[in-house]
Amino acid sequence: MAEPGPVHSAALPTVLPTVLIVGGGFGGLRAARALAGAPVRVVLVDRQNHHLFQPLLYQVASATLSPADIAAPIRHVLRTQGNAEVVLAEVASVDLEARQVQLREGAPLAYDFLILAAGSRSSYFGRDAWAELAPGLKTLDDALEMRRRFLLTFERAEQEEDPEIRREWLTFVIVGGGPTGVELAGTLKEMARLSLPREFRRIRTDRARVILVEAGPCILANFGSGLSEKAVQGLERIGVEVRLGQPITAIDARAVELGGERIPTRTVLWAAGVSAVPLGAGLGAPLDRLGRVVVEPDLSLAGHPEVFVVGDLAAFAHGPEGPLPGVAPVAIQQGAAAAANLLATLAGRPRRVFRYRDKGSMATLGRGKAVAHIGRLSFTGYPAWLAWLFIHLMLLVDFRSRVFVFFEWLWAYLTTQPRARLILGKRDLRS
Amino acid sequence: MAEPGPVHSAALPTVLPTVLIVGGGFGGLRAARALAGAPVRVVLVDRQNHHLFQPLLYQVASATLSPADIAAPIRHVLRTQGNAEVVLAEVASVDLEARQVQLREGAPLAYDFLILAAGSRSSYFGRDAWAELAPGLKTLDDALEMRRRFLLTFERAEQEEDPEIRREWLTFVIVGGGPTGVELAGTLKEMARLSLPREFRRIRTDRARVILVEAGPCILANFGSGLSEKAVQGLERIGVEVRLGQPITAIDARAVELGGERIPTRTVLWAAGVSAVPLGAGLGAPLDRLGRVVVEPDLSLAGHPEVFVVGDLAAFAHGPEGPLPGVAPVAIQQGAAAAANLLATLAGRPRRVFRYRDKGSMATLGRGKAVAHIGRLSFTGYPAWLAWLFIHLMLLVDFRSRVFVFFEWLWAYLTTQPRARLILGKRDLRS
Repeated sequence: MAEPGPVHSAALPTVLPTVLIVGGGFGGLRAARALAGAPVRVVLVDRQNHHLFQPLLYQVASATLSPADIAAPIRHVLRTQGNAEVVLAEVASVDLEARQVQLREGAPLAYDFLILAAGSRSSYFGRDAWAELAPGLKTLDDALEMRRRFLLTFERAEQEEDPEIRREWLTFVIVGGGPTGVELAGTLKEMARLSLPREFRRIRTDRARVILVEAGPCILANFGSGLSEKAVQGLERIGVEVRLGQPITAIDARAVELGGERIPTRTVLWAAGVSAVPLGAGLGAPLDRLGRVVVEPDLSLAGHPEVFVVGDLAAFAHGPEGPLPGVAPVAIQQGAAAAANLLATLAGRPRRVFRYRDKGSMATLGRGKAVAHIGRLSFTGYPAWLAWLFIHLMLLVDFRSRVFVFFEWLWAYLTTQPRARLILGKRDLRS
Repeated sequence: MAEPGPVHSAALPTVLPTVLIVGGGFGGLRAARALAGAPVRVVLVDRQNHHLFQPLLYQVASATLSPADIAAPIRHVLRTQGNAEVVLAEVASVDLEARQVQLREGAPLAYDFLILAAGSRSSYFGRDAWAELAPGLKTLDDALEMRRRFLLTFERAEQEEDPEIRREWLTFVIVGGGPTGVELAGTLKEMARLSLPREFRRIRTDRARVILVEAGPCILANFGSGLSEKAVQGLERIGVEVRLGQPITAIDARAVELGGERIPTRTVLWAAGVSAVPLGAGLGAPLDRLGRVVVEPDLSLAGHPEVFVVGDLAAFAHGPEGPLPGVAPVAIQQGAAAAANLLATLAGRPRRVFRYRDKGSMATLGRGKAVAHIGRLSFTGYPAWLAWLFIHLMLLVDFRSRVFVFFEWLWAYLTTQPRARLILGKRDLRS
């Protein structure tokens, strides 16, 4: 194996193996970076031009942060990595035999190694009609649409004369008690309670109902004992209503139904679940019930050691942890491990079995409130919130985002007036 | 007249006259603020929820600033003004006899006084088919669409094998040599020259052609002698091509035509002119050639002393300055003057004739370069650029924007890497 070191693409002999990475999220980007300086040509394909820091996406939906705060152009992140190039394109399918990837438009891309890190999308468990009624939260466009709907409801409530319809406008239902649903519910309630009241003359925004609905018996199910109850208490203290064990049975333009009850609302936001992107279905490998590709212990595809699948697209069920959740730390560790195994093969060394190291979980509940477990430690309240702030700032992909997000948060905390409360897009004020 | 002072809307007797303001831009917002504490009920209607600092809109188009940096929710700006309320709605027409305003949706709004400050929109001088091919720059949505097109062209050029088509992608034509066109050309060229080169592997973004086309004999025509030539020199020094005296005669998806020459390009941006919104046409008053409503010396509508027209919607041709241009300082001063005349009438005092005080004009040409005239002083280069920075920061409507824009500019200046380079919206990568 050649001495690792910076290699400029112009100087790359064409015999270098091509590593094609599909997806510039946590898994794909980490894999690309792990291949810096290696004697390979890295081609990263994504249909977006930016890497997105998804754990903070709900803060764009709640008008706290701007898109540029939590996203960086993939090209920018990889600009100094001479052996990497970036292609903005959507992958349609993988031809395992020909070792090439078909794009929606343009010529196919050939590979010697393939790392599939194409992620997941909102899933409505077969109720596809709900997608329009209850938008999900996976992309910046999703977040901007959610922000638009959230801010517009107050405008409509302010203009509404009928008190009953006004109450419908001021009722928000968030479906799904995972971290996204919990954090979204907390931040929307805080916005209505702290930021908006002085701006409206006819409505009391602090009386807006925010209802968090979870079909299972508890929220933040994989946070472990105690934290789930603490989270419910924390949310209820700021006024969020939490409904447990009640799956949504119907959604229409004016209400949701759960547990036989009909709750009138004009705004339903979906954080109930994701499934893998359909790309995995064409690989011929077994899929789990979320559509994720079952992978080998080394993260490769059975029968195709040159193909790795990582992150939300992968179902990794080996080892004591059982099936791993679709969260950023799993994707990051798998991206690094896939790159390491690929380099091991190139160097004639054996591959390693992937082992996930769970560093903990945390979720904010509102201003100064959070729940967290790190290792065996569980903590709540202000200390957990500070830990959350610090860790999320550190995880932001580059220095500039850290600085700006820090100041946005400081501003929002001191003034209760986050800056991004803009209604953009569609001109039709009624839809 | 009652003692001016803070009045809370809940305490307002219904006999207070209603001042309806259409438009939350510079003119309308200034008028609303000038009525703070006065014994009137102020209702401000806008179809957007935000006041927009239009002079910096080109920096959103060029991916330097985020929308939240140059826009503030109108409700937020007026939140402490107890006699003001804000309605998010689009005005369809004015019924001068009934003294009410029809909305596109919802019940009409009655008024005792009306201040029309609805502004202008991009004008294609009858070539409406050009609107799709050459987007204008009036709203945040426009700016985001321009940013999307600008950033996508480099992605397409990077993927293009045909060198001729690649050159088409890397050619940008900006139509219109006013401040918007000049600043847009300068900032796009700087982005291509300083920010993007390291991110692409196949194309030389610094060789992208940016062509500024002006139909008249000089750019920045109303900046006065000398500065126009200086501006051309400044732009040419950073590589912008300036074409003077050549109106565009045709635009299609792959080229523009001017002066008998066909310039292949895939990106045409429109900064060539505006006309007043059509609202003025239904008032029965004479309009000027830009569709602006000719107003009386006190800014009122002839025969309707209860109606004022200000800003881009007004044609004010009294006084030595002749017809006033559609710029922010004119709108701001007229908004304040209309409010003052309205209060004079309420108090039984005579109205004043509006007089515009021209404080100067300035435009940036790129990093560290600008042209400015303030009073009789003309200056260029670094001093003009610093003056531009300082004055625009001071004019930003609230403190928070100032702070964040200052840091965004500082960051962009020190690193040449502005943060907002995101491609959002439409998923079709080819359109």
